[in-house]
Amino acid sequence: MSGSYNLIRLHGFGDIAREHRRSRPHLLAAVDGGTRLTYADFDRRSTRLANALADQGIGEGSRVLWLGQNSHRILETLVACAKVGASLCPANWRSSVEEVKALIADYTPHLVIWQEAEVGETMRAARADAGGDARWVQHDLDGPDGYEALIAAGDEQDRDLRISPELPLLALFTAAFAGKPNAAMLPHSTLMYQNLLISRGQMIDERSVHLNSGPLFHIGTLLGTLATFHLGGCNVYTPRVDARTLLELIQAEKVTHAFVPAPTIAQIREINKDGAYDVSSLWSSPAAPEWKFPMCMPADAPMLRQMGGYGQSEVMGLISFLFLGGTGAGRVSPMAQVALLDDAGREVPAGEVGEFAVRGPLVMAGYLGAAAENERRSRFGWHLTNDLGRRTEDGSLIFVGPKMAMIKSADENIYPVEVEACIRQHPAVADVCVIGVPDPVWRQNVKAVIVLKADASVGEAEIVEHCRARIASYKKPKLVAFVTALPKIPGTQFNDRKAIDAAHGGGGYPSFG
Amino acid sequence: MSGSYNLIRLHGFGDIAREHRRSRPHLLAAVDGGTRLTYADFDRRSTRLANALADQGIGEGSRVLWLGQNSHRILETLVACAKVGASLCPANWRSSVEEVKALIADYTPHLVIWQEAEVGETMRAARADAGGDARWVQHDLDGPDGYEALIAAGDEQDRDLRISPELPLLALFTAAFAGKPNAAMLPHSTLMYQNLLISRGQMIDERSVHLNSGPLFHIGTLLGTLATFHLGGCNVYTPRVDARTLLELIQAEKVTHAFVPAPTIAQIREINKDGAYDVSSLWSSPAAPEWKFPMCMPADAPMLRQMGGYGQSEVMGLISFLFLGGTGAGRVSPMAQVALLDDAGREVPAGEVGEFAVRGPLVMAGYLGAAAENERRSRFGWHLTNDLGRRTEDGSLIFVGPKMAMIKSADENIYPVEVEACIRQHPAVADVCVIGVPDPVWRQNVKAVIVLKADASVGEAEIVEHCRARIASYKKPKLVAFVTALPKIPGTQFNDRKAIDAAHGGGGYPSFG
Repeated sequence: MSGSYNLIRLHGFGDIAREHRRSRPHLLAAVDGGTRLTYADFDRRSTRLANALADQGIGEGSRVLWLGQNSHRILETLVACAKVGASLCPANWRSSVEEVKALIADYTPHLVIWQEAEVGETMRAARADAGGDARWVQHDLDGPDGYEALIAAGDEQDRDLRISPELPLLALFTAAFAGKPNAAMLPHSTLMYQNLLISRGQMIDERSVHLNSGPLFHIGTLLGTLATFHLGGCNVYTPRVDARTLLELIQAEKVTHAFVPAPTIAQIREINKDGAYDVSSLWSSPAAPEWKFPMCMPADAPMLRQMGGYGQSEVMGLISFLFLGGTGAGRVSPMAQVALLDDAGREVPAGEVGEFAVRGPLVMAGYLGAAAENERRSRFGWHLTNDLGRRTEDGSLIFVGPKMAMIKSADENIYPVEVEACIRQHPAVADVCVIGVPDPVWRQNVKAVIVLKADASVGEAEIVEHCRARIASYKKPKLVAFVTALPKIPGTQFNDRKAIDAAHGGGGYPSFG
Repeated sequence: MSGSYNLIRLHGFGDIAREHRRSRPHLLAAVDGGTRLTYADFDRRSTRLANALADQGIGEGSRVLWLGQNSHRILETLVACAKVGASLCPANWRSSVEEVKALIADYTPHLVIWQEAEVGETMRAARADAGGDARWVQHDLDGPDGYEALIAAGDEQDRDLRISPELPLLALFTAAFAGKPNAAMLPHSTLMYQNLLISRGQMIDERSVHLNSGPLFHIGTLLGTLATFHLGGCNVYTPRVDARTLLELIQAEKVTHAFVPAPTIAQIREINKDGAYDVSSLWSSPAAPEWKFPMCMPADAPMLRQMGGYGQSEVMGLISFLFLGGTGAGRVSPMAQVALLDDAGREVPAGEVGEFAVRGPLVMAGYLGAAAENERRSRFGWHLTNDLGRRTEDGSLIFVGPKMAMIKSADENIYPVEVEACIRQHPAVADVCVIGVPDPVWRQNVKAVIVLKADASVGEAEIVEHCRARIASYKKPKLVAFVTALPKIPGTQFNDRKAIDAAHGGGGYPSFG
């Protein structure tokens, strides 16, 4: 209606920090090692960083890449990007040099913030080869070329740019269905709607203390981080997962919410079996109970509710929730529509299996620079998830499985098609199928079933090494089998994965239903 | 980014009903007298109505007016309007003929849905005088000209129009600061963001049963109605407030949430002092305790939290909440910014009183057709609330009072400037100041302090009658005093309200702080 009111109604992700500075100036925003920042500090620093970015020409549509472990600086940079209209990609720091190079080539960042500790060798190698004219800033470096110097270079005056909440803000690499990961571009409004839902499901408010123990390049951790920030709670950071460090932080900061990968829970329980650490702010019993959902809060934690559901990075993590009611993966989010479609885009009859198709502001704005994949995934007026599911008679969602296979190792998603594409590059390989084999600790191990070319010869170690050099180490096969032929789905060139699983011990694939 | 994804990301208020039909087909959406509708029924009826509206040319930007008491048909019509891009105004059915005429002239509806029972005489009189070419449909009429016949005329096929959530959906007449009320136009996204916040504060979910006992033209009731609908709970309707009916409904429907005007609480307590009605779903004690906030849930009700805050219809009711933390009127909403401005649009120094100025998607899109008022209220990049407040040292909002006076009678807002404008029309009146006088039952009574013209003569009854004929009955003065002069603020023509209050027993003005 009124032009002034259109401008007044804008609320970007940066505006959250602005209001926290007014509403919660003294509350803690971040604890990270020796660093403790109030919301007044947080907004001041993110404003300085936004101004420093703007002074270097970073503005609407620009891209910033984070190549490091967990740090309070990720959220600070996200908010600075929000204030100038740029997007931030927190990349997987466990990537290989080749993967980082591919990621840089795909995301084409204008600024890279990278870390020396633990991952410096990989990042420097990728930088040397990557080309491009991005500026590189080291976040764990004191001195004129470091992150703190960049912040100090920005002036304190908030320029208060009015940013459309429909601009992409967060970029998450995900879903290697096309053989390589793509960056799902998630707008400000997507994050904000999801924050309100997550805060509802996990009862997050300004008294919440959220331990960022899972990786911040993973939507599962980010959901809690972003909702805690939005509601004015405190985010506690640790660069990587270490069970004893987590216990110390839970006790010291009176952590109320946490994302802890499933294998770490067992370690925590073992270390704390005598109750030496006070974890009563998070768990009802000193030896932490098993969590029902790896991405979720413990069902019996004080003030928390069970956090099950269905989702993927492309729809901001979760678009159905058990806390909303129902069974299986629960009811669809108040900010989404879900239809079950057949391959022609028609809704399948009640109770039958179809592909989950999603609409609404929780859906990404598309993959960056992937026109063909965007077209393939956005048909019939819906985002196609590539996941199969059905509805119960009462309307709840049931997750059936990926339309294409996925392997889960700890909390990492591994797409067979990506590993297969890598192995196929080996000159000795004629055909390959990558499957997941159940593992008591890691949930699944990657196994490659390989057909060699006539007269070719190669050993298991060479295949593993071939992969290690090209993709993230956790994606490489731990097991290799050589066969003379792979069974195919009748009438197609596609591997019959069911038959191959049966013959080679495959199973334990992830299911959220 | 991708055009397809822009369309996929749209989520209008009508899409909520579409998803409920899939996710909650068997859950109850509405109970109203003998009518009980599931969400499948609800969506089917709202689709039929939307199609019937569209067939009559009602689409994006069209306006529908509701002239009746509470009914499940208000929400049904709102969703039908949402599906075609129109807006709905639920008008105050206690308005006078003159007020309804003014409202029709201002809102210029394309369709009027009106009620015969109790209010038919007023509505018919207004219709006879109003002119315009709106179609009028009677909602409490069986037969070809009634509301049910209109629904039956629409086909069942969902046309699934993609509607921008930035289009105005709900129109609320409010704030007679300019002498007459204006229609605040609230877009789809405004309602949806607020629903998520209200559901968080009041713990509303699909198990909630919300009793619509307050008037649905008032944002205080609507907040609960809309959030309950959005989360898939059940709305129970009653055409008007009657203490015994409320008790019967609370018991029969196991009501968990309700808006009950303060005077009615006392009646409920009296009627139920022997505990004859089971109100345990809503209150912890049989004789309902006094509620701390008239717009809110009882503080001790099961599953409910204290619902205090600051707001006005122009910002969707509430933009600060005590449940978010802080003191006074609590912390600012996660979807708003609030600045305290002086008359030049500068933020006042910390701790000092200024005008609450608001930004973000909870702010209306403007008043309908009120360019000058929109310009006055949307200066400096903020919506100016006309309310004064300050912040505590910890960042909480404290409501100080309206920049211009307001009287509160039961839950009705009465703007002295509007009553004064009416009284000034009387030929005998030279000057007037309307104040509020504390009243144990009604909170405040309206009192007019009048200066007569030289040689003019008029009695108290004639002034009261003059008002009754022109404005809503509850706005007319109950008390009249005649004086020879009114004290003015030095150097201005403005009445010195403080001095007039002191001399004539004024006080008890509303404060939310």
